[in-house]
Amino acid sequence: MKHSPRVQRLIDTLTCLPGVGPRSAQRMAYHLLERNRDGGRLLAAAMADAMDGVQQCQRCRNFAEEALCSVCADPRRQARQVCVVASPADVLAIEQSGEYHGHYFVLMGQLSPLDGLGPRQLGLDVLEQRLGEGEIDELILATSTTVEGEATAHYIHDMVEGTTVSLSRIAQGVPMGGDLEYVDGATLAHAFRGRRPL
Amino acid sequence: MKHSPRVQRLIDTLTCLPGVGPRSAQRMAYHLLERNRDGGRLLAAAMADAMDGVQQCQRCRNFAEEALCSVCADPRRQARQVCVVASPADVLAIEQSGEYHGHYFVLMGQLSPLDGLGPRQLGLDVLEQRLGEGEIDELILATSTTVEGEATAHYIHDMVEGTTVSLSRIAQGVPMGGDLEYVDGATLAHAFRGRRPL
Ligand SMILES: [Zn+2]
Ligand SMILES: [Zn+2]
Repeated sequence: MKHSPRVQRLIDTLTCLPGVGPRSAQRMAYHLLERNRDGGRLLAAAMADAMDGVQQCQRCRNFAEEALCSVCADPRRQARQVCVVASPADVLAIEQSGEYHGHYFVLMGQLSPLDGLGPRQLGLDVLEQRLGEGEIDELILATSTTVEGEATAHYIHDMVEGTTVSLSRIAQGVPMGGDLEYVDGATLAHAFRGRRPL
Repeated sequence: MKHSPRVQRLIDTLTCLPGVGPRSAQRMAYHLLERNRDGGRLLAAAMADAMDGVQQCQRCRNFAEEALCSVCADPRRQARQVCVVASPADVLAIEQSGEYHGHYFVLMGQLSPLDGLGPRQLGLDVLEQRLGEGEIDELILATSTTVEGEATAHYIHDMVEGTTVSLSRIAQGVPMGGDLEYVDGATLAHAFRGRRPL
């Protein structure tokens, strides 16, 4: 039996969710259609709204719905200490560790010239300008331990060299080759305390 | 860190999907926002469209976008043999077994008076009328082996008694207390071949 066109399209598009294959997509579609159409309507509306309404913070490039994200808008955070991460999910993971009270700079990717991700795409020109203007005392690199993460760390290291900015990189506990967003809070807290000067 | 309102609403509403808890909902939301906004937009549109555009077949109550579903509209299917199931997902599971070539009657639930699911809510009055008009030769019960499934089978058994309709129930291979939609095709095919008169 073929699904009707609308059901098939719902199943197909559900597979754009991470970890959702054709079989669980089908189960999700049927579940909503049989038992929770109101939930499906709310989800559809929330998703459309988020895809268009969530922008980037003007200061740190993290997700934001105002000009500044909640971290950048918080006067209790130390603005002269900046942690560089690849993605908003990494910010979230670090925030959940409760160890860090500075600002962030979110690259939205890591250096990967073959994928068209150069310094400009990652906002590294903006970061360099801000360093030049003396806004930042300490830069903490929390890029991943992948090839791209290493290349990004190396690029920022070269950028900081010759300035008075203190540069460190979170170290202990971050598993090699792993994505930061799946690391538990305790491990991340440990990695922050164990950061070493580069 | 709190999520911004739109992100939080997306995470909350994603948990209406079966098997999706707060943690995977968060991972899904961030994945879409970071890497696949177009996919998220298509999913939102497909979901809204399906929630409102998928109706019920006028004949068998299965999901349909036209007056008749694809099974009822197919002249090669045996219309005088009708299999009674609880849900559209059960139809799908049986179709995938490739063993059955008759029509269906989809209850969209099973008898559960405490949940407000009586014979009328399940369309059993319509089925009884159709039986009375001599449209059906054989009725195959594929309701589940739960308390509600047994009650439903019992009700239909009483309804058929005294008529010439042949009544059977799929038997071997259906696990006790399990949901039909998770049964593999081979087991379901076996259950169809092993059906016994009630
Ligand atoms: Zn910000
Ligand atoms: Zn039908």
